[in-house]
This record gives sequence, structure tokens and C-alpha cells, in this order.
Amino acid sequence: MSINLPLISVNGVLDAAISPLDRGFAYGDGVFETCRYSHGAIPLWNYHRERLLRSAERLKIPLDERLLNQYLNSMLVYPSDANIAQAVVKITLTRGIGGRGYRIPDQVEPTYCIGIFPGNQLHTEQYRNGVAVRICNLRLSQTPILAGMKHLNRLEHILARAEWQDEFAEGLLLNAQGRVVEATVSNLFAVKNNQLYTPDLSTAGVAGIMRKTIIEKLAPALGLNCHMVNMELDFVRAADEIFLCNSVYGIWPVNMLVDDRQPVTATHTRYSNHQITRTLQQQLAHLLGE
Amino acid sequence: MSINLPLISVNGVLDAAISPLDRGFAYGDGVFETCRYSHGAIPLWNYHRERLLRSAERLKIPLDERLLNQYLNSMLVYPSDANIAQAVVKITLTRGIGGRGYRIPDQVEPTYCIGIFPGNQLHTEQYRNGVAVRICNLRLSQTPILAGMKHLNRLEHILARAEWQDEFAEGLLLNAQGRVVEATVSNLFAVKNNQLYTPDLSTAGVAGIMRKTIIEKLAPALGLNCHMVNMELDFVRAADEIFLCNSVYGIWPVNMLVDDRQPVTATHTRYSNHQITRTLQQQLAHLLGE
Repeated sequence: MSINLPLISVNGVLDAAISPLDRGFAYGDGVFETCRYSHGAIPLWNYHRERLLRSAERLKIPLDERLLNQYLNSMLVYPSDANIAQAVVKITLTRGIGGRGYRIPDQVEPTYCIGIFPGNQLHTEQYRNGVAVRICNLRLSQTPILAGMKHLNRLEHILARAEWQDEFAEGLLLNAQGRVVEATVSNLFAVKNNQLYTPDLSTAGVAGIMRKTIIEKLAPALGLNCHMVNMELDFVRAADEIFLCNSVYGIWPVNMLVDDRQPVTATHTRYSNHQITRTLQQQLAHLLGE
Repeated sequence: MSINLPLISVNGVLDAAISPLDRGFAYGDGVFETCRYSHGAIPLWNYHRERLLRSAERLKIPLDERLLNQYLNSMLVYPSDANIAQAVVKITLTRGIGGRGYRIPDQVEPTYCIGIFPGNQLHTEQYRNGVAVRICNLRLSQTPILAGMKHLNRLEHILARAEWQDEFAEGLLLNAQGRVVEATVSNLFAVKNNQLYTPDLSTAGVAGIMRKTIIEKLAPALGLNCHMVNMELDFVRAADEIFLCNSVYGIWPVNMLVDDRQPVTATHTRYSNHQITRTLQQQLAHLLGE
């Protein structure tokens, strides 16, 4: 059996559409998960599930986990039946249909949208050879009440991504104080003296599932300490290694960090050492079974 | 002819739905306008149009004004034919359909969604008798790149509105520095010594159409100076009058401002003087022809 991707269901119905009254469309009133699918399963599902449930709770969206599982499982059949080894599974949860106005309706029936998108093998060119990264001009706003969630209010990230074309694989995002938060679709780690450092995300940023996997599984398995810190750009520049991660592409070594926000004083920081990054990649491939 | 509201069109097609791949649904990637419709027209259309065009430009969404007018005019026929005097016209503009990822597609065909919702006469109970307002706990984030726009990233406002039920008509929103920005669906004005003051919105908030109408039309017509300021809460408490405004309900006098964020030190500020507010209301009713 062959299928055309993306394949999307809305509340369990294949190829269904979204109401213009859906609060996801009207206000970005929801959250999403983007999961790596490999050989019939989502290996990091427990972490995705945990973040989705916690985000729904923070946004007061009454997620029904039985329905979610039903809709998700009915979609996971398709790539499996079509012998598609790698895919990306995107789950969008919104507060469902509402009238005009921000007030949360008395009765909420969430919208569950599940999409199966094309995916790649873990060992892409970027995974093997590393990437070049720039620093974005846009400064992320700080909102503790939304921080950490992968919510549907993504205009800042869209405008940051619009700052460049294909010259760089990613763009680092700073907050108003100039501290490093994340990259547009990735989290950042720096390695210094065999210790891992990653930005604290209590006021901004998406607390990624691969970041959590590194903190809670890969680093401990390798005996590496990991610190969540208020991260200065100078610390990143002086690191032994830096790498980016997300749940779809895994871990990318960073070869070069370009700061051309002020062309006259543009700097290029090069990283030739990827020793710990490579060890983490091996550990990850082992964990994912790829 | 009778019609059931809301009546919604998507790209000119009545009762059409939104694709789950629409970037409005996926990322809140768009803007909207909520306009007062009265007796066949949108009296403040020039200002709505100007903000919509400017916001589309800021977000790099290639709005086609000819299409917008075509879709809008075909919808404005319905309330007119059904002898509906007052309605609310909501225009949602998104970056249209895209794949996965924040990157702006090379070819963008925006989505134009036009809805006609039920409306009220200008002289509602709140318009006549004034309202009670509270101060929200949530602090608005500051993002100059998004400030002023009525964009689709509205989670902060939704969570702020979820702080209370019906006890208050509105909630004031402060920024992280404790300065007053706006209310959840309104802008705020304070009157002191026959001068008008309203918060500067260069780092946060929605620059409302009724706010602009007051600044550019109603205040000048009455010979009132109007200042855009970094507004302290104490200034609001010490004002002679305060009022809220938006383009749908017009101008609401505020009778009481309740600050119960810390129950032990809760304060109630009462405003019994509404002299200038009433004069502005009269001027507005005259302008709108209601």
C-alpha cells in the first residue's frame, strides 16, 4: 500500500478541515508536538505525552487522553502499512470551536489534529558534517506563563526565521537582556571542560523533548553533568563544543557561529572539536534504535 | 430574507473550512480586524484598512487589497439584505497554506476569512452606566516587533481573561515593569485636568481603532490634548476620569478599578466624574451616526 504525505486527521476523520471558529485558527489557542516516528513507533512518546498533558493543563485545555490515543493510533497505522520507516508525527491540540472573544467557553471540546509528514533517517548530512549557525536580530519576549510550552503563538519564531534564507542551518535567539535562549526550532547545548550547559527556559523558549532526553538520559548514561544556566553569548563563543538538538533531527554538531548583526564588527566563531557531541549522537542512535 | 449569524466565508466561499495546513491554525501566523458594522457600512473602515495593510506589511504577508475588498463586499450584502442594523465584521488574514516549519513559503497565497457576527446598538447598559474593571495578575510580554498589531498570537490575553468570570467588565494588563498597557479587549484612557492620557504601545499591546479615532478625531474636535505616555498605575488611580474603548462597543466609562491581586491590601478606586467621557461618547455617536 502506498500513501501520499502529509496525511492529516481532525478529530479522527481523515482529510477533514478546521472550522474558521476553531480557537486554534482564531487566536493560536493551543499547543503542538512534533515527534520523530521510526519503524512503527514514536520512540520518545513518553516525553511528548508528558509535555502535551502538562501544557494542556497550564492552558486549561481539557485534553481527553483516551481520545488522543485513539486518534493517534489510527494514524500510526498508515506509515506502518506503507512500509515508511521514518516520518514526522505532528499533533496539534486546540481549545476547539468558540464564539468571538478571548473568554474560554463554558463547554470546551478540544480539536485533535494528527498529521503524518515525510521524515528522514537520523544520519543526514547535517548530522554527520555539522552545521553553520547565525545569531538572529529579533529578541525573544519573556513570558513565564507561556515559557517552555510548544504553543501555537509562533510569530516571533516565524519572523526570526525570515531573517535569512539557506546560508545557515539555524539561528540563535537571544532575549532582551542578550542572553541565549534557544534556536528557532532547536535547543542549544554548550560543552565546557566535559560538562554540559543549556539555557534555563523559565521565562522564554520551548523546552524541547530532545533537550530533555539529553538532560535525563544521554548525559547521565555518559556520566556527564548538565547545568541549566542563564547563558551569556560569550560563554557560547568560548565553549569547547556547541550543538543543537530537536526531537526530529536529533543532534547537530555546530561548526561555526556567525554574528553578523553589526556587519562592521562581524565575528565567526569556529568549533573543530565535536568529541562529546559525537558520543551523545552515538548514545542517541542507540536509544532510538537507528 | 433572514440569516443565521455568524456567517463566514473563506477566500470568498461561504461556509468553507480552513485547511489544517493553514499557517493561521498551525502557528497563529496572521492578523485580524474586528469592525463595528452599522446600517450597511463599517464607519471606521479607513482606519481598519490602514492597520490591516500595515500589519500585513510588517508580517510580510502579501495582502491583495482587490481580493480583500471583493470578499468583504460580498459578505456585507447579507446583513444589509436581512435588515440587520448592527453587526460585527471580523476579518482574519493568514499566511495561507504551508508545510511543516516556520520558514515562510516561497509562494504565499494568503487566507482571507470574513465573518459577520451579531452586534449591539451603541447604547448598551455598560455604555450608559459604566463598568467595573480589575487589574490582571498576568504581565504582558514586551515585543517591539509585534507591538501594536492585532495578530493571532493571543494566548496571553486568553489566560488574562481566564482570571475572572462575570464580576468585572474588563481587566487591565500591566507589563513586567508594572506599567499599564491596555485591557484584554480594550484600550485605556485617563483624564487629568482636562487632558487625555493613554499608554504608549511601542513595546506591547494592540493599537486599537477606537483609540486612534479618539486621538485623531474625537479629542481634536473637542479641543482636548492627548498624550501617549509610559503610564504608572498610580496615575490611573489619581485620574479625574478613566474610560475604556474598542471599535465594537465604543466608549465605556469606568466607575470602579479593583486591585485585588493581593487580597490583604486590596484597593477599590471609584470614579464618579465622567464629564469628558460623556462628551467623547456624544462626539462618537455623532461620528458613527448612531
